[in-house]
Formats: sequence, structure tokens, C-alpha cells
Amino acid sequence: MSTPDRLIESTRELLWERGYVGTSPRAIQQRAGAGQGSMYHHFSGKPDLALAAIGRTAGEMRAGVEEILSGPGTAAERVSAYLRREREVLRGCPIGRLTQDPEVMADPMLRGPVEETFAWLRDRLAAVLAEGRERGETGAGLDPAATASAVVAVLQGGYVLARAAASPEPFHQAVDGLLALLSRS
Amino acid sequence: MSTPDRLIESTRELLWERGYVGTSPRAIQQRAGAGQGSMYHHFSGKPDLALAAIGRTAGEMRAGVEEILSGPGTAAERVSAYLRREREVLRGCPIGRLTQDPEVMADPMLRGPVEETFAWLRDRLAAVLAEGRERGETGAGLDPAATASAVVAVLQGGYVLARAAASPEPFHQAVDGLLALLSRS
Repeated sequence: MSTPDRLIESTRELLWERGYVGTSPRAIQQRAGAGQGSMYHHFSGKPDLALAAIGRTAGEMRAGVEEILSGPGTAAERVSAYLRREREVLRGCPIGRLTQDPEVMADPMLRGPVEETFAWLRDRLAAVLAEGRERGETGAGLDPAATASAVVAVLQGGYVLARAAASPEPFHQAVDGLLALLSRS
Repeated sequence: MSTPDRLIESTRELLWERGYVGTSPRAIQQRAGAGQGSMYHHFSGKPDLALAAIGRTAGEMRAGVEEILSGPGTAAERVSAYLRREREVLRGCPIGRLTQDPEVMADPMLRGPVEETFAWLRDRLAAVLAEGRERGETGAGLDPAATASAVVAVLQGGYVLARAAASPEPFHQAVDGLLALLSRS
């Protein structure tokens, strides 16, 4: 990996583990095995590096979600596949956790990709649910946008419950609860 | 307010605003208008103060939830009242946000009240839903524990979506989506 790549990857890991406020430029340099001069040669500072790191994480997340949602199956099956795909539940969501970072939320440049990622995700899920409604599948009477927001919220909240319990169990329970509701609607 | 009370209240505010990692003993002292000697006279350090602050926040939260859930109405009405009660959506949940704090999660003493609060909340909601099931209300075929976890997850995830969007709208949309699903089950 090139030095800028190592710096970006180290920033991604640290943002996920410790958040933005808890990540110092020095910790990034140490993890990347890069000197201070090298870091400031490639990036103007921590915000610039964080932006690159968040952009890369958001891009990977979108690609993974799109692969599932554009796959075969009914709308309910695709939403279920999305909710049930393998996850490192206890690590939480690398994008969602940024919303708890006051400095990320206060900086429009850093909040931008977080907002865009969730807006895209809600829209994409709403489109899948609207497709299912047109085909007369389950949930034909539901508002696709509201249901999509509930789906994304259950995932993000499931991570919170799992971390609180130090166990993935409440995450899976919340997903089961939502899917049972969806299958009956 | 007494000095210990001012220190606890300042810690509560700072934990909510900036998290544990982002809150220094110095910032607590400044906000409380207390000196370092005074703080260490009353508390052994930041973890001790945080424990008192988290305990107080958790106690208030439980009392507020209990008031709604033990009130009148069907199970669905009480769950709806709980989800729709007025909230400072953009500030997020003072307990839930602690799950994103690596130092809180790594310290069993500090994670304890976070775990207990969510376990209590899920159990309490499950009991309300089980009551509704026995009375033959809506959702009679649902698993109360799974549905309760989905309800708590939608709230916690709704805060994440609202903060990402810098608007309470996605929070309310997720709540609407879940309540529509519940009312059809």
C-alpha cells in the first residue's frame, strides 16, 4: 500500500474504533507507520484525512448494499437479506457511529457524506419496497419511505443495543422483530 | 446546588454533548465552577463522576418511561405514546450515545448501567406487549421480546438518522413506519 493509502486505512480503523474526537493525528501516523511530515505532505490535516476515510467507507457500504438490494427475490426477501447479512455487530456501523461525534456533526464537510449515505440508503430501500407494492407483494398498504426509515433505524439501533449488552443477541432480536412485523403486513 | 451536585450535572451535560472520551476533568470543573481539589475531594476521578452521572440519567429515564408504560390504554397505545413522547431528537439519547464511547464500553463499571438500562427497557416493553397479547389486542401473534427489541432499536436508530440529517424528520418517519407495521399485525 502507498503511504496515502496506509494513512487513509489507519484513519478508517481509528474512526471506527475510537471516533473522530478520540483519534489524534499522532495515532494515525503511528498506526500507518508514517511520519508527521509525510502525513502533512499528502493531507492538509485530520479533517482532510477523515473526509477521505469516510468517503471510502461510505463507498464500500453502498456497493455492498446495492449488491443485495439489486439481487433477485421479492422486496421482503431483499430487505431481509440486507438485514441478515453477516456483520461485525459489536463493532457497530462505521458511518452511524460518526453521528455521535460532536466535531463531525459540527463540520458540514464531514457530516455531508454521513447524511448522503443514510439518505441514499433510505431512498434505495424505499424504492425496493415501492417495487414490491407495485407487484402486490406483502406490505402493499405500507408507506415505502416510512418503512424504509424504520428498517435503517432498526439496524442502527440494533448496534446500540448489542454494544450495550456486549452481545450480538439484541441486534438479531430486533431484526427478527422487525421482519416478523413486515411479514404480517 | 451543592458542589457534588453541580459536578454531577456538569458531567451529565458534557457526556451527552461530547461523550466520555471527549470530556476532560478540567472541562467538568470549569462547567461546574469547581476547583480540582474540590472535585477530587468528592469524587475519586472522572470514572467515579461519570458513574454518578450515568446513574442519575438512567434513573430519570426509567421513571419517565415507567410513567407512560404503566399508564392507561392498550399495549399498542402505550408503546405509541412512548415512541411519540416529546424528545430532543437531535441531542440523541444520553444513554445510547455512551455505547459509541470505547472507554465506557471497555470499563465494566461504566458499561453496567448502560446494559441494565436497555435490558430493563426491553423487558418492560416486552411485558406491555405480552399483556396486550393476553388481552387479545393487536399483535397477538408477535413475539413480545423481539417486538420490544425492535421498538427500542427504532428509537435508538432514529436518533442516528436524525443526527445524520441534522433534522428530526427521519426519526419521526422511522417511528411512523414502525407504528404502521405494529397496527397492521
